[in-house]
Amino acid sequence: MEPYPIGLSVEEARECILNCCAALDSECIALEEADGRVLAEDLFAPESIPPFPRSPYDGYALRAEDTHGAAKEHGVTLRVIEEVPAGCAPTKQVERGQAVKILTGAPIPQGADLVVKFEDTQFTAETVTIFAPGKSGENIVPVGEDIQEGDPVAERGTVLDGAMLGVLAGLGYTKLQVFRMPRVALISTGDELMEADAALLPGKIRNSSVYTLASYVRRCGAVSMRRGIVPDQAQPIAAAIAQAAEQSDLVLTTGGVSVGDYDMLRKALELLGADILFWKIRMKPGAAFVAAVYQGKLILCLSGNPSAAVVAFFLLGIPALRRMAGRRDVELEKIQVRLARPFGKKSPNRRFLPGKLEIRGGNAYLLQAERQGNGMLHPLYGCNLLGELPAGSPPMEQGSSIEAYCLFL
Amino acid sequence: MEPYPIGLSVEEARECILNCCAALDSECIALEEADGRVLAEDLFAPESIPPFPRSPYDGYALRAEDTHGAAKEHGVTLRVIEEVPAGCAPTKQVERGQAVKILTGAPIPQGADLVVKFEDTQFTAETVTIFAPGKSGENIVPVGEDIQEGDPVAERGTVLDGAMLGVLAGLGYTKLQVFRMPRVALISTGDELMEADAALLPGKIRNSSVYTLASYVRRCGAVSMRRGIVPDQAQPIAAAIAQAAEQSDLVLTTGGVSVGDYDMLRKALELLGADILFWKIRMKPGAAFVAAVYQGKLILCLSGNPSAAVVAFFLLGIPALRRMAGRRDVELEKIQVRLARPFGKKSPNRRFLPGKLEIRGGNAYLLQAERQGNGMLHPLYGCNLLGELPAGSPPMEQGSSIEAYCLFL
Repeated sequence: MEPYPIGLSVEEARECILNCCAALDSECIALEEADGRVLAEDLFAPESIPPFPRSPYDGYALRAEDTHGAAKEHGVTLRVIEEVPAGCAPTKQVERGQAVKILTGAPIPQGADLVVKFEDTQFTAETVTIFAPGKSGENIVPVGEDIQEGDPVAERGTVLDGAMLGVLAGLGYTKLQVFRMPRVALISTGDELMEADAALLPGKIRNSSVYTLASYVRRCGAVSMRRGIVPDQAQPIAAAIAQAAEQSDLVLTTGGVSVGDYDMLRKALELLGADILFWKIRMKPGAAFVAAVYQGKLILCLSGNPSAAVVAFFLLGIPALRRMAGRRDVELEKIQVRLARPFGKKSPNRRFLPGKLEIRGGNAYLLQAERQGNGMLHPLYGCNLLGELPAGSPPMEQGSSIEAYCLFL
Repeated sequence: MEPYPIGLSVEEARECILNCCAALDSECIALEEADGRVLAEDLFAPESIPPFPRSPYDGYALRAEDTHGAAKEHGVTLRVIEEVPAGCAPTKQVERGQAVKILTGAPIPQGADLVVKFEDTQFTAETVTIFAPGKSGENIVPVGEDIQEGDPVAERGTVLDGAMLGVLAGLGYTKLQVFRMPRVALISTGDELMEADAALLPGKIRNSSVYTLASYVRRCGAVSMRRGIVPDQAQPIAAAIAQAAEQSDLVLTTGGVSVGDYDMLRKALELLGADILFWKIRMKPGAAFVAAVYQGKLILCLSGNPSAAVVAFFLLGIPALRRMAGRRDVELEKIQVRLARPFGKKSPNRRFLPGKLEIRGGNAYLLQAERQGNGMLHPLYGCNLLGELPAGSPPMEQGSSIEAYCLFL
């Protein structure tokens, strides 16, 4: 009997794997480079935005009390003492009977508590006439309307996007402490594999799924490192894993995890003295899977079958990479969807269906490609959802409600 | 009167802009570099996948006719003449009474038309015994099950993702003709702006929205080029636009597109002799907008107000960039969603609400940040949808059904 568990549930497998990885160290980078990176510090606003009360319109800043008697028929005329364009500071205080011409974005001068829009006035170079009473505070954007000094702005573990970079730029943050991007080594095993640019020999196929996995790895905010093809022999596989583990944060392999005579991954891991965490997961596709730890690095061994490899990567690889990348949201979000097409097969085992989110008439659907096959990558085009059919499910009709994991949404 | 239209509908503005841009030229790049790029050629399968009939299991390849009399109590025993691991070519033809041991992924030998799984047999090194009749073709993956030689694989204008790269690698494509990525120059105008790393002077604010727009530009598969801050003067703005147009495929500016004394964009474009396409769009936010063509390059002049700039970029900039990037899907997809929160204001003008897609109970919702403000970038965090309220809409209750454009989904 093997000294490791065989046939875990997806949840057990995920917990076991997540227990073996942690957020990587952090590094300081320039704001311009931080798009898509994960923040490694809690950030607070060092100042308010806007930093001064400002005018949202072109108009005149004045004292609300001066407008009290104003009406359409008898306007109130004030003396214009200054003009303040955006980017300039007012130099004068507004007294009773006075107004300051102010442009959008400019600071409200001392003494003024109301802005009247340009188009609601009549004016000359020296005077402005107001035709309606205004309230104190009207048309004035207060200090800190957007963000107050000291407010929390972004938490450790936040994935930075364009909006957040803009907020941080506005607060003067130009360097950020972010988590290092996980480096993921990809090893393909299998005597049948040739590189994509090779002329195919009899019985061989091209190594295609490594391109797919590398792309998914990058979409997790990690760096992919292709380590080529290794034959189905324990010794070379062990050597490739040992070297990859030294140079990366996570090793992904494909192939050699089933029960056949040529399935060498467990032998290779045993040769290395790696700690095998478990073998096989109770799901379809993707059952053939080995997880191990070697020299403190997680080794996830996926099936040689493309869809099986991808499904296992989605369910176990993405959470592991999110944890290593320092993200707060480690688990895949689960949503309710309907099947956009019928699924004709029974599911004696728990089954996962890759597909695409579609919204029709306000409802969420999982759209699976019409033709599916275990060796096929084509149906994964645009895939961003992974539907789930519980063990024992009958064939499912179109429109059936199921749960689905969000992958890249 | 200005010699250009003022106040177009969003649809008119989009059509006008799309008429002024076309797919860029194409370039040949390595498959490894092609993730996220747009294909510039129609691709067909130069060979079938799989290229030979193969076994999906470890087992024995044999002739179905040999199994006709087989039953649980009286098995049929065949002589094993060869073993074919994956990656090897069979050397012998299977005759009556013979079988070939075959591993997952290996080619089916000549003469055999059935694979019996390993676990459904009894075997020795020289023989295998079968206990049930099998049908011709069972457990055999036919040539081209995934893709048939000559099949269309990907059309010009397809955005390449991991799945498609895998398919193309499997077919031996290692170089691809893709559209050149649009280069987008970003010019910020406004006397009130300072760079993010500057100590704020009185009346000034930091140039934040350029980080947001640059990120959105990159998410459209384009390259962003920051061209700094230009003061509110027609001559320097004209010079900056002229230089940017020379070095990029699309120029985006922010600020100076309203009616104020300091709104210099139209003056700058007139100075250059640029062809102004239109001014203003009938929507909120984002009404202040100028589109022009200079030296054959599209110049989109966005509002200085961050949310207005972003909304106009979503509705007009994304389709323009998709067209230039060669994508088939140029227009933003429209879906039906419900409001996750009430929207308290009336909408005399057509109004757009940035937010996030949320799926709850199988229904699609637009989740807007609780606090919204025209100058705020914070509420755009995670934004991937743009809801639309038609002109004349009353305040909307939570759960109201509206249309929304998909941005980055």
